[in-house]
Amino acid sequence: MELSETAKALLTGNSAIRKSFEEGAEMAKKIGAENVFDFSLGNPCARAPSKVKESIIRLVNECDGQYLHGYMKNAGYDEVREAVAESLNRRYGMRYDAKNIVMTSGAAGGLNCIFRAFLNPGEEVVCFAPFFGEYKNYASSAGGRLVAVPPDTNTFQPNLDLLDSYISEKTKIILLNNPNNPTGVIYSSEIFKKLQGKINEAQKRIGHEICVVSDEPYRELAYDGNTVPYVPLYIKNCIVVYSFSKSLSLPGERIGYIAVPPETPLEVISALIAVMRVGYVNAPSLFQLVVKDCLEEKADLEFYDVNRRCLYEGLTRLGFTCLKPQGAFYLFLKSPVSDEADFVAEGKKHNILMIPGSAFGCSGYVRLAYCIPQDKIKRSLDAFAELAKKYF
Amino acid sequence: MELSETAKALLTGNSAIRKSFEEGAEMAKKIGAENVFDFSLGNPCARAPSKVKESIIRLVNECDGQYLHGYMKNAGYDEVREAVAESLNRRYGMRYDAKNIVMTSGAAGGLNCIFRAFLNPGEEVVCFAPFFGEYKNYASSAGGRLVAVPPDTNTFQPNLDLLDSYISEKTKIILLNNPNNPTGVIYSSEIFKKLQGKINEAQKRIGHEICVVSDEPYRELAYDGNTVPYVPLYIKNCIVVYSFSKSLSLPGERIGYIAVPPETPLEVISALIAVMRVGYVNAPSLFQLVVKDCLEEKADLEFYDVNRRCLYEGLTRLGFTCLKPQGAFYLFLKSPVSDEADFVAEGKKHNILMIPGSAFGCSGYVRLAYCIPQDKIKRSLDAFAELAKKYF
Repeated sequence: MELSETAKALLTGNSAIRKSFEEGAEMAKKIGAENVFDFSLGNPCARAPSKVKESIIRLVNECDGQYLHGYMKNAGYDEVREAVAESLNRRYGMRYDAKNIVMTSGAAGGLNCIFRAFLNPGEEVVCFAPFFGEYKNYASSAGGRLVAVPPDTNTFQPNLDLLDSYISEKTKIILLNNPNNPTGVIYSSEIFKKLQGKINEAQKRIGHEICVVSDEPYRELAYDGNTVPYVPLYIKNCIVVYSFSKSLSLPGERIGYIAVPPETPLEVISALIAVMRVGYVNAPSLFQLVVKDCLEEKADLEFYDVNRRCLYEGLTRLGFTCLKPQGAFYLFLKSPVSDEADFVAEGKKHNILMIPGSAFGCSGYVRLAYCIPQDKIKRSLDAFAELAKKYF
Repeated sequence: MELSETAKALLTGNSAIRKSFEEGAEMAKKIGAENVFDFSLGNPCARAPSKVKESIIRLVNECDGQYLHGYMKNAGYDEVREAVAESLNRRYGMRYDAKNIVMTSGAAGGLNCIFRAFLNPGEEVVCFAPFFGEYKNYASSAGGRLVAVPPDTNTFQPNLDLLDSYISEKTKIILLNNPNNPTGVIYSSEIFKKLQGKINEAQKRIGHEICVVSDEPYRELAYDGNTVPYVPLYIKNCIVVYSFSKSLSLPGERIGYIAVPPETPLEVISALIAVMRVGYVNAPSLFQLVVKDCLEEKADLEFYDVNRRCLYEGLTRLGFTCLKPQGAFYLFLKSPVSDEADFVAEGKKHNILMIPGSAFGCSGYVRLAYCIPQDKIKRSLDAFAELAKKYF
């Protein structure tokens, strides 16, 4: 059977992260999992809060099975959507209504619905490098195209100076990811204010609206007292995509939501739901009700923070260069040689798995996901010390 | 924001079933849920087997949280895929391997991946009327087109006599649904043997392979000692799509699988997974492990059977005409007037909600989903008696 062109393209654009993750699993079989320093995948290691387990047990004991495991509106249970809206209203002073919330299969399940609901062939999503590499596949499989504004490697904030030349009549969406994967940088409210100005000008020039989509799976993961600005407070017409994968350590359960601006026409919400129906139909029912119980819960931030400081201090002490991550659980390390693929290959010789920056549209760097057991972070520093000898 | 053409098309092709379901919810608010005879949605009413609850509690108590709720291979946990393969091998004498099984977000999540993996713009999926209306949206959102062979209303078996003229160079997939939604008919093994002959001829004529996709969410629901033939035993190159929505009464949880023929090239499996990654990423983790525990469990067949007999006998006694359903939980009633929309509208006056056959590519009929509480089936017969007075 001949595959579709879409499928062929996806196969060639296969995820570097997933490839490395499966390589790590193979290495683990050979030399033992404890000896592989696998920094490739953002698979949260901090345990889910105990409330998750309590909620699951309470729900299966108390709830009617047809309600708990049955069909609901495709957009999700009303009670869950109301609770999410109220939580966002309370935390950020928004005025969402239940109908502005659509429960999704994680953030990926939200982004893919949005892209399919808005993108026609040839239309573009503008994002800022470095960016999560899968965005490219999300845009292309929806028939569109991802266009990346080159990075500002001094701050890794969105490079607004270069934005204008990347916006054209084809631009439909500007995609943000805050806190950022792969840099761990938190975009500032000042940047968003400036971005709104840039968008106003651009919309006049191109003659149509641009929708801002803010992908925020790492929203709750901010360190050193940093706060993560809520983008819709600064940017009009901003759709927020959220996932509980990281905040509740539930990436395998595929649960998240889309929050559209209160003034969004009903037709747009209906379109998102219609697109969802030709994919996964609805977000998983039990976990919709679980996250409702756990909206105020957070992952063990301290767990990641210890890893973050340990890795950052260890690596910089060895002579490596990087910005200190402010959020998420990634560290974006400058490769000591210009072709980071060589550096990644050298790392493998010391059983260190890193993802090349080119997978994020930013070569010359590598990404380390530090959501792994703490003793491994410590032991990895010995391996990095050996690796450093080659360069410094 | 201007919606994509795909989204616009999906909005106009909006599900008649979902519309009726939401209408039923509105009616329930006004006149009380107990007074609405809502036969619109296939939302299983039989409770999930107790093993489902036991399994959930066991898993959350015994399993490591990162394993239970974390990322796994996109195709699913190895142990789950192995167990599904073994179960199919044992029950049907197949020789599947774990790698032939891809865990999906229900049957819809499986079908949509298959269509995206195979269909290029303009390519066609051939199915047999009457058919589940959403198939049309699945095909079109994947860029393809659904083509329906007209029904054989005497038997509601696939109308093989007319198949040839619907197969052309554009045909990529033949889609089967057994037991059938909306008729409740079980397709026979004789039909499948004949179909293989027709496919052999057609492949020679059109010069390329046709893939048969068998959508089997109702496989376990067969009455009167009927068995449901396992299509790959009769048809080469058949991909089976399964859902636990009905067999375990878990439609909201979105859990199912794709089983590809053992000889399928690895590239095809990789393509299915790559397509899944730009949708819902993976099937929900906890419920993958739950269904592994419950592979030999079944929904309460007796519950549906009582409904089936009660409704079939009651309606035929009143003068209505239909084939006695052999499987699934649908009854396909001949409308007493040629335009079944009139009949549906008359039904509403008696608080009876039915789906017009035109939503399934077969006008002149209506579908009744009898997966509703038993006392409601009984009470609905009084309402049907009133309705019958208008016609007989």
